[in-house]
Formats: sequence, structure tokens, C-alpha cells
Amino acid sequence: MSIAFDLPPAARRGQPADTIDTPSLVLDLDAFARNVDRMQAAASQANVKLRPHAKAHKCPDISLAQVARGAVGICCQKVSEAVPFVRAGIRDIHISNQIAGTAKAALLADLARHARISVCVDDPAQVDELAAAAQVAGSKLDVFVEINIGQGRCGVSDPAAVLRLVDRIAAHGPLAMRGLQAYHGGIQHLRGWQERRDAAAQAADRTGSIIARLEAAGVQCEVVTGGGSGSVEFDLRSGVYTEIQPGSYVFMDADYGSNAYTGTLRFEHSLFIASTVMSVAAGDRVVVDAGLKSMAVDSGLPWIWTDGAPSQMLDYVAANDEHGIVKTKPGNQAGVLPLLGDRVMLVPGHCDPTLNLYDEIVGIREGVVESIWPVAARGLSR
Amino acid sequence: MSIAFDLPPAARRGQPADTIDTPSLVLDLDAFARNVDRMQAAASQANVKLRPHAKAHKCPDISLAQVARGAVGICCQKVSEAVPFVRAGIRDIHISNQIAGTAKAALLADLARHARISVCVDDPAQVDELAAAAQVAGSKLDVFVEINIGQGRCGVSDPAAVLRLVDRIAAHGPLAMRGLQAYHGGIQHLRGWQERRDAAAQAADRTGSIIARLEAAGVQCEVVTGGGSGSVEFDLRSGVYTEIQPGSYVFMDADYGSNAYTGTLRFEHSLFIASTVMSVAAGDRVVVDAGLKSMAVDSGLPWIWTDGAPSQMLDYVAANDEHGIVKTKPGNQAGVLPLLGDRVMLVPGHCDPTLNLYDEIVGIREGVVESIWPVAARGLSR
Repeated sequence: MSIAFDLPPAARRGQPADTIDTPSLVLDLDAFARNVDRMQAAASQANVKLRPHAKAHKCPDISLAQVARGAVGICCQKVSEAVPFVRAGIRDIHISNQIAGTAKAALLADLARHARISVCVDDPAQVDELAAAAQVAGSKLDVFVEINIGQGRCGVSDPAAVLRLVDRIAAHGPLAMRGLQAYHGGIQHLRGWQERRDAAAQAADRTGSIIARLEAAGVQCEVVTGGGSGSVEFDLRSGVYTEIQPGSYVFMDADYGSNAYTGTLRFEHSLFIASTVMSVAAGDRVVVDAGLKSMAVDSGLPWIWTDGAPSQMLDYVAANDEHGIVKTKPGNQAGVLPLLGDRVMLVPGHCDPTLNLYDEIVGIREGVVESIWPVAARGLSR
Repeated sequence: MSIAFDLPPAARRGQPADTIDTPSLVLDLDAFARNVDRMQAAASQANVKLRPHAKAHKCPDISLAQVARGAVGICCQKVSEAVPFVRAGIRDIHISNQIAGTAKAALLADLARHARISVCVDDPAQVDELAAAAQVAGSKLDVFVEINIGQGRCGVSDPAAVLRLVDRIAAHGPLAMRGLQAYHGGIQHLRGWQERRDAAAQAADRTGSIIARLEAAGVQCEVVTGGGSGSVEFDLRSGVYTEIQPGSYVFMDADYGSNAYTGTLRFEHSLFIASTVMSVAAGDRVVVDAGLKSMAVDSGLPWIWTDGAPSQMLDYVAANDEHGIVKTKPGNQAGVLPLLGDRVMLVPGHCDPTLNLYDEIVGIREGVVESIWPVAARGLSR
């Protein structure tokens, strides 16, 4: 009963950007390249290593571009997520997370036969599970102790607990203690620049005090890794991080765009969802073809973007599964709604889970499709 | 530089259900089958056709099971979404939506060479675009005029506008006017049973009055399609629908589970996300491995499910990209948190966008993995 039927691609190289089928995830390649260069230059200038996070994009082409410009490797958040990056030739991957279960430990240890792999721990049982898996695979794993510097999610808070984990790691031949992970996700999204600066300073102080306690006990941290796109300008000057792991800076999103930036390290919106007006019947609103299945709204609705800046006329006011509702801004009653078939470019509220909805990123430059990059780790959340 | 490396599957047929790698989407096949049977029996008894919506699951195996039990065909919400269902042998598909753009019209007309295809319109330009595409493809398209019965999203409100669209459809040889689509998504999620009943009655009245106006003008509606999992018990008795298009009933979710049901047509939670506790370092909470990339939270956070019912002890209180925070319920200070490596089953807040995150559904029966069904239309939002 089954038949062969090919779904035409949304875009082909060389096609005018304004004819891409919608909804599609579109990357402004010039803005993207400037973002990649800007972060690398800032890290190099601060003499801090850059290990960009791949959880934001899940796209090996992006990681390869970052490594080609000087990144020392990448971060992944999940073990399975790392697989397409190892396949694509990335040879140094830090899993910035704890893992639980023998299946995941076995996969991690297997990956470590092909690339340098590190992972976080915050419990002795994790250490033992990793060691057993590495023993079976005949591989070596680098291990970071994650410390809680205020997020209250993963990581140990007590320096004595860190030391116990360091001892536990040392007891296992296939494991090597590499250093500390100190990440505070909540800081990234504090809106005020000073507020963010102060919170980052407090987190760095906590990190520094644990480093000092470890040094007093004779434990040197080769690497202290952490930081994100919202805190990186402070992290680079903190003196505690040897390595930063920002991810979203390559794209930015409406959430990061809502932060105040008075410092010099700024990034551009490079990521958009191209969508089309599919119904104008209601009269006082129009319906576009990008809804909850085309963007994550956990951090807010998307911005409508026109002429390279947020629209002064239109708001995306509601997301249904497959529909978005667009109205004129409340103060713009004279505003003109787009017409049936018109295109609307959206800046997603939150890039990471938005990328996780798409199988490809359509790269455009000067109005033409230049690249189609697979989001090869899409859906790899194990 | 690239290497070959296989990602092991999350589950294999015959494996104990409690050893599936996590996060994974798990379907209780017995509860699922009861839901499918219950809806078919209700529709058959009411002498109303059942055309289940595939946007909820995007999985051809589910549609084939529904058609095998008596469904007349399926609904899809997007043109590209229909492709894997046509491939799998579904031969009658209604696109319950407007489409915009020549690429989509061409794909739709091409699909109509392999299956009976219908689509909604609410603007004369859509009618002309469909006709032109069908002419090129040498196919026939069935067309529904969508009417706005209170949702205020797509659809025309004025009977005169319906009649103009009917005339426009009649002017094109490759198009056939099939009837009306009358759907009100907002009703589905009204919590109170009487509130939902009254809103459904009002929507049915609006539909009935437009049908009467069309009949007075000599236009017979062969099919009146609409209704969803939250309103179906009223829609079946409304006398206006010849066909219902519920989707979520096969799974249910925490949002639909929050509706009050005093009628006789009830469905069971059959869909779960299996997740694992990956960190217990914080002490007053645990972290599970399923966050925003493993579930949609637009309609609320997931329920934790234990022993076949919502947990009385634990709450999933926050979703980060790859983490979920689980605490004891406020009134249960004596509650015991799960241990590192323990499994937690979650009922997602909203099934449709959650399914759109997964490549497969792991079907279990009596504690054993019985089926692995591809979510073949995942990500097909064009």
C-alpha cells in the first residue's frame, strides 16, 4: 500500500532568500560570522579558552566553524548529542552535565575511544559508574566536579564534598580529574547590566573560594569552565575561568536581546524564522504559519523583524500549535497589517529549544541561499 | 576527518520497559487501544464519521490503527505533514487549514494524484492558487470553506462571504466544494463541563445558522467537519457535524486531563515521558533529565505519574532546556525524593508539540517494549 513520494526541500542553494518555503529557520551568515569572530577575539584577548556550547545549535557545521577560528573544542549537554559532532570530526567534547545510567556511561566511554571526552559529576556513584564503563571500553575519561555557585540545580556546594569527589576520581585508573565546572544559568537572563555584573562577580567569588580551598588541600584545577552568553564579558575578566562555554551568542534571541548591554561585547541577531501570512479573514489580525511547532515560547513570544530591526508596527501576540496571531501594536492603530502571502521574519524568544525543532538551518547571504546545514543533533536528548 | 559511529537505540522490542534509555516517549499500548476504540464506538453510535487529527501524533502507525478500526481518513494541519501519511498508505486526507504560496499549493496538488485530498479556504486568492496548482498537476482537490464560529483565527464569519467562496470554487474545474469546516480550538480547553457544553452549543448554533443560509441559497454541504477531543461528546450530539476530527484523545495530556468530564466519553492517559534522576546534590530537590527539549510546557508543566495515577508526593516545578526540577509537594514535607538513577514517568502538559520533539514512540505492554513507531511527520511544519 505504501508509495514513494519525495517532499521537496524548503530551500536550495542559489535560490532567492525570499522564496524559501516557510516556516524555515534562516541564518544571516554575515551576522553569524561576526558573532563567531567577536567571541573568539574577546576570549583570545583575555587569554581564556573558548569552548562554545553546541546545545544552542546542535549543528556540526557551526562547531567546525568555531574550532576553525580558534575554539579549543565544544560543549554538549547530553551524551547522545555529542555523537554527530564526533562523527563530524570534533575531537574534544565536554559534556557539561551529569549523566545517569549504564547505557549513557557506556556510550560516553565508547565515544572516548574516538575523541577527548570530559563529563561532570556531583555524586560518588556517578564517578564509579563512569569508571566501570571506561574500564569496559578501554578508554579514558576526563572528569569535572561541578560546583553549585548559586543556581541550585546540579553541583556540590561544600568544598569538603568537592575534595571527596576528587579523591574518588583519583581512585579510578581510567578517570582523570580535570577541574571544576562552575555555571550559573540564571545570571544569563538578568536584564540589567549592573545586576548581571554583580551576580557574575558573586558567582566568581564563590568559585574562587572553592579553588582556594582545593589548592590549600594540594589539588590544582587545570581547567575551570563555565560562563554563558549573558555573563561572558564578566567571566572573561573574573580571573577564575580558564575556559568559557557560551552558545547562544552565535544567534542571539529575543530573550538575550532583552538584556541591557552597556559593555563592549555585543552580538547581533542572526537567527530568524521565515513565516508566511496564511489567513487575513479576521480583519483585525492576520495568521502566520509559524506557531508552537516552529518556535519555543518558554522565554516569550518572538519579535517581528523588518528592515533589519524589530518592527515598530506589528506584534506577534499568540502562538497556537501551527498558527501565530499578528496584530498591529496597541499604540499603532494606523498600522497596516501584512497581506495574504506576505512574509514575516521572526526572532525566536529562545534559540536552544527552537533549534531543536528544525532539521536544517538555511544560511543566507546578500539575499541568496548559500548553505543548508543539518541540525544533526536535533532531538538527541538522551 | 569524519568517522562512523552508531548511536544505540533508546529501546528494542522485547526489552523491559523500565530499562528504556531516557528521556523517551512511551505509549501504554493498552490504554491507547482503549482510547481509539472508545472514540470510534462513540462516533459510530452517533452516526458521525470519525476523521482523527494526525497533528497530535504525526505517526502513520497510529493513523493506520484508527483507519483499521473505522476512521474514514485523517486530518493533517500542514501540507508537508501529509506526505508520510500518503507514503504509508492513507488515502483520504483533509488539510484542516489554509495554505499560502505556490510551493505548498503545488505539493498539495501533487499529493492529490495519490490520495483524496481536501483543504480549507477563507479567501478567494487561496481558491485561485489551488485551482492553478491542480490544473498543472492534473489532479482534483476537494475544498472546504472554513467558517469562524468564535475562535477568531481563520475562517469567514459572514454567510455572504461563504457564498462568494462557494461560487469561486465552482468556477474552477479541478476544485470541488465539499462542505464547511467549523472548528473552535478555544472550547477544547475550557475546564468546566457545563462551560464547555454551553460554548460547544453556541458554536454549533453558529454553524447551523450558516448551513441554513447556504441551504436557502441552494448550496448543500455534503460534509461539516470540526470538533476536538475536549468538545467531541457535545459535537457528536449537535446535529450539525457529519464528521469529527479529534486528535489528542489517543494520548490525553495534563491539559486535557485538567478538564472536568461529567459525561460518559472519557479517555485515559496513555502517553508518558520516561526520565531519570541525574542529580541529587541540591538536597531539597532532584534534577531529572527531561526538560524543554523533551516536552512542550506552553500548556503547563508535566504531571509526575506513579502507580498509574498522578503522584501525591512529587511536583515537577521547573523545566530548563535539558533539566527538570522535582520537589516534594508543598503539603508533603515528609515526602521522600527519588534517588539518583530512579525513573520518573511524566504526563506532558501538551501532547501535540511534545510529539513534535521525538523521532519515535516506544510502545509498551505489560512492562515490555512491544513496538517502536516512527514519528514520521515530526518537524514537517511547512
